[in-house]
Amino acid sequence: MTIGVLGGGQLGRMLALAGLPLGFRFRFLDPSPEPAAAAVGEHVRGEYRDPDAWARFADGLDVVTYEFEHVEPDALEWLETRLPVRPCLRACRTASDRLEEKHFMLGLGARVAEFAEVNDLTTLRVAIERLGTSAILKIRREGYDGRGQVAIESRAAAERAWDAIGRRPAVLEKRVPFQRELAVIAVRALNGEIRIYPLVETRQSRGVLASALAPAPEVSEALRLEAEALAVRVLGALDYVGVLTIECFEHEGRLVVNELAPRVHNSGHWTIEGAVTSQFENHVRAVTGLPLGSTEPRGHSGLVNLLGEIPRLHRVLSVSDAHVHVYGKAPREGRKVGHVTFNAAAPALVLERMKHFEHEMKTHTPEMERIR
Amino acid sequence: MTIGVLGGGQLGRMLALAGLPLGFRFRFLDPSPEPAAAAVGEHVRGEYRDPDAWARFADGLDVVTYEFEHVEPDALEWLETRLPVRPCLRACRTASDRLEEKHFMLGLGARVAEFAEVNDLTTLRVAIERLGTSAILKIRREGYDGRGQVAIESRAAAERAWDAIGRRPAVLEKRVPFQRELAVIAVRALNGEIRIYPLVETRQSRGVLASALAPAPEVSEALRLEAEALAVRVLGALDYVGVLTIECFEHEGRLVVNELAPRVHNSGHWTIEGAVTSQFENHVRAVTGLPLGSTEPRGHSGLVNLLGEIPRLHRVLSVSDAHVHVYGKAPREGRKVGHVTFNAAAPALVLERMKHFEHEMKTHTPEMERIR
Repeated sequence: MTIGVLGGGQLGRMLALAGLPLGFRFRFLDPSPEPAAAAVGEHVRGEYRDPDAWARFADGLDVVTYEFEHVEPDALEWLETRLPVRPCLRACRTASDRLEEKHFMLGLGARVAEFAEVNDLTTLRVAIERLGTSAILKIRREGYDGRGQVAIESRAAAERAWDAIGRRPAVLEKRVPFQRELAVIAVRALNGEIRIYPLVETRQSRGVLASALAPAPEVSEALRLEAEALAVRVLGALDYVGVLTIECFEHEGRLVVNELAPRVHNSGHWTIEGAVTSQFENHVRAVTGLPLGSTEPRGHSGLVNLLGEIPRLHRVLSVSDAHVHVYGKAPREGRKVGHVTFNAAAPALVLERMKHFEHEMKTHTPEMERIR
Repeated sequence: MTIGVLGGGQLGRMLALAGLPLGFRFRFLDPSPEPAAAAVGEHVRGEYRDPDAWARFADGLDVVTYEFEHVEPDALEWLETRLPVRPCLRACRTASDRLEEKHFMLGLGARVAEFAEVNDLTTLRVAIERLGTSAILKIRREGYDGRGQVAIESRAAAERAWDAIGRRPAVLEKRVPFQRELAVIAVRALNGEIRIYPLVETRQSRGVLASALAPAPEVSEALRLEAEALAVRVLGALDYVGVLTIECFEHEGRLVVNELAPRVHNSGHWTIEGAVTSQFENHVRAVTGLPLGSTEPRGHSGLVNLLGEIPRLHRVLSVSDAHVHVYGKAPREGRKVGHVTFNAAAPALVLERMKHFEHEMKTHTPEMERIR
């Protein structure tokens, strides 16, 4: 059985590393000459909007999934007439448009930041009047890792912000004075079975996930139940198959949904070592119609992203129980090129190792420091 | 950095699955058209004794290792003049000849079964006179998984046994009335650092490993220390780099060495889920000169081999926390085509799941039962 993945980056690569032991083969559609996932499957080189590439990609596949939500909808539509596409086109569409996503979440009774639709400079100005100047302007589609976002700090900044996002359809969001960011990672099987990972606390730096702790410390029973109910509602409403990530803010002890990712997610990379079944294996199991594996945590985990370039492995592995994941991508400033997971029986030990690691990196790899 | 592996079977495949996340690439020399490891690295098709294949294989590699010890010594010798070969030729030679192995172990003060060298029918008859008729005749080289072995049950059986092993240089071993079989898995880094996994209890069926429990239950402190001292002596004496497996019998509370495997081993497959660092990752770390990872167990593990063919995954994964490893090999009676690991906090839970699994397999896959 061969699984087709739209996108051949690190998520595709880790999906294959988890799916190969189950006996599956992988094929990746990706326009770059040597994507990260090419080491673990067949690479079909082609543009996502090229129907000829779709055909070469689809030939002989059993199921299609994707590692990023900004897939050409036409591609998914075309594929859906020929093959099972999981998660479905509708889930992908909802999650890839900030405006649709917010209306969808409100429809489910979830909380989101106050927002306004922005289509031109006039609607932006009106939105700023309504929401105030502590707000963020975000393009509706194709934004990720903080790209396509501009903070609005004064009325005068409107025009500059509108230019900065390329005058594209957008959403103005009022800032949520959150206590922390939390991610809900859940998976739904073809038969509707749902499993939910423990809440993850994430920390961003310049719009990019920098580190994560799992299970998130000090999660009240009420918050846990709220997260689980939220996941169940979203997965059910979308008739979702696969792993879904809901990025949230914790505000006054409750969840405010920031955005959905209809795929495996950086905030779940710790599950490789830190959960009974990783998010990657559970996504593969779900899209191939297999029963899901347990999402129970194994001890406590901390995740640190490697940005820009991979430090010397000798250094990284000299830190106790550092589990290194190198994506095989060329170094580039700020680029996610790998991650390290620390896993231990107690949260304090995890934090200690993360600190030791960050100290080691600062002391010994000046290149890393420059990038940070 | 590219790691060359002689042999492209499941061990090579699992080495690559563990080494890819560290950023390494893999190349496999294997004569078969589509070996299991080809899904995770470059496959150089060629015969192990063909110097032209050695050259194609070696070109551009950084280090060479192997997944089976019956490598053509000429190949390793040729490679050793060009590249680091780890573990070294001497370790491979010692472990691939039962007679050399036994003399080596005796030289280190280890216990082995009483044995005699057999080169023809006359020496076999003399050996039977000396060791008795509760003995096993084993070819010196190239035996594995019970192949090249014949039980001797009477003096009259000598000629038939000699024919059965193809009249090849052999060793007659007196049977050890052992309580159980145990495996010591240890790893030594380039700088001499040694880490040892907990003892594993293994169960064989018709000469093939059927299942394993780790850590082995009821291991006395004395036995543990004996195993560790043994590993340290062997690894040091061979100036070994990589994972080494010592298969032993437990006899009267002490270890009797059965054989050495200079490589990752079936009895260590549970380490993927059941140890902080798997035997595969530690082997990769060792042969590439990296620091070793912890060999501490994570909970308790049970391993069951899948022989002949892969049962329906739906069935296998319906058993709680079954971790399936499919090797991508064509089905064939008795062939190792995959394994399943069960991991839990308590040994009783592991045993319960193993039993449940074996029951499921018997009930629902008649093909499996036929093979067993």
